[in-house]
Amino acid sequence: MQPAISTVVKRVWHNHSTEEPDQLATEEPLEIRLRYHSPTGIQTKSISVTMRTPGHDAELALGFLYSEAIVASGNDITDISIASDSNDNVLYVTLAPHINPDLAKLERNFYTTSSCGVCGKASIEAVMDACPVLDTKDTLQISHNLIFALPEKLRQHQQLFEHTGGLHGVALFDLEGQILLLREDVGRHNAMDKLVGAAMNKDMLPLNSHILLLSGRASFELMQKAAMAGIKVVAAVGAPSSLAVKMAEEWGITLIGFLRDERYNIYTGAHRIVT
Amino acid sequence: MQPAISTVVKRVWHNHSTEEPDQLATEEPLEIRLRYHSPTGIQTKSISVTMRTPGHDAELALGFLYSEAIVASGNDITDISIASDSNDNVLYVTLAPHINPDLAKLERNFYTTSSCGVCGKASIEAVMDACPVLDTKDTLQISHNLIFALPEKLRQHQQLFEHTGGLHGVALFDLEGQILLLREDVGRHNAMDKLVGAAMNKDMLPLNSHILLLSGRASFELMQKAAMAGIKVVAAVGAPSSLAVKMAEEWGITLIGFLRDERYNIYTGAHRIVT
Repeated sequence: MQPAISTVVKRVWHNHSTEEPDQLATEEPLEIRLRYHSPTGIQTKSISVTMRTPGHDAELALGFLYSEAIVASGNDITDISIASDSNDNVLYVTLAPHINPDLAKLERNFYTTSSCGVCGKASIEAVMDACPVLDTKDTLQISHNLIFALPEKLRQHQQLFEHTGGLHGVALFDLEGQILLLREDVGRHNAMDKLVGAAMNKDMLPLNSHILLLSGRASFELMQKAAMAGIKVVAAVGAPSSLAVKMAEEWGITLIGFLRDERYNIYTGAHRIVT
Repeated sequence: MQPAISTVVKRVWHNHSTEEPDQLATEEPLEIRLRYHSPTGIQTKSISVTMRTPGHDAELALGFLYSEAIVASGNDITDISIASDSNDNVLYVTLAPHINPDLAKLERNFYTTSSCGVCGKASIEAVMDACPVLDTKDTLQISHNLIFALPEKLRQHQQLFEHTGGLHGVALFDLEGQILLLREDVGRHNAMDKLVGAAMNKDMLPLNSHILLLSGRASFELMQKAAMAGIKVVAAVGAPSSLAVKMAEEWGITLIGFLRDERYNIYTGAHRIVT
């Protein structure tokens, strides 16, 4: 459960070099096994392996299952625990008896996935199906001074990142710019799953009066997870992809990119930002 | 097949804002469907969906199948082509009749994958199995001045990145520091698969007298793909993860991180760098 591991590194600059202690962001596999009720008894199915930074693993599983529309709330899960042989990298999630997961859909979504980045989506259409129609008739108004201030607030809280330089951070703010949640991981999708899982545990969903800040780039995958959680304002320190912008437009999400050095770009939903 | 898409963006700084044209890194799903010979005729199986930047798709498929140890060379594939309905995002790969893919292994590797980052590895053990033992008795010697010069050479060639800020770059250099191959993608694993696929097409494998440069961070996944291709020297502009360092040590790969501003850190295999 260590988010960082100590190592010794040889630092080289110009014609000098020294050996010094250093910290590495921990990366380890986490396998999620689903236990669910069937007419013939309890079945177990391995549904996911992800390379993640240990810590907040139950939140990761919860947020992941929510983003994939397998569970709708914490009530759909009766237990999340590590394997009895104490392998910290295998997590068993037991669904409530009333939950009948669509395994054919699971298979469609997961089976064809392997090279990362799409996270169990067999196609964009499958994602669109799984994604709730967001209520875009909100009256959210956010001052641009508040937007400018977000990255510094993230940095102040993102202690681990400063030590290893190897973690993605995802933070949730309220409309006054107070940081409510922060999660970090070697995989940005994992950081997002952990944040959504934490919000579920606090009964905060839908997150429709909040701002999501991403320490890196905005991809399709992160926008899908944001949309599933009801988030309407996403700000990224890095660049958005073409599909992130397209989906933000489609889902009525305000998408900000390149938020750094007192500047940012608004790609979609500019009406919510008051300058 | 456009790596970048034009958009209009609202740029905000201080109390000013303007609307300007901008470029976004293209992100679209690519599904790989495997066609293979069986006693009952040709079977088709969807084995992967990844969010990628269009372009070099056949290389991506080739490099991906090689990294997953499904094919050993280009001779194991008779055809790579897009779907007959001209859906550019579905690629059919036809295996040669002598190739009998281990579908049970495919299932083990792929089925449990969904949250990205691990790319079809059911466990670290499965990866270790698939990875050839590297010959570590080489006499590679690389001057540190050559290492310092790599990022600038990448930048000079990485035109697209400069326009969108949204692509990962992966470059292959020879031991004189000449750039041989460069591939870019919204997914770093895709950029790496494309590079390996391109190297296969040029009959360059194993890449054991080369240097691999990564524009971002070094993860387990990238180290696994590098090891499969026989690469012995990996330099990353960003941070390595704990598992990247562990695997580099195990596989005898020299791993350099934080290569920027005339500095770098050597995590493993320092004996190959001559200062």
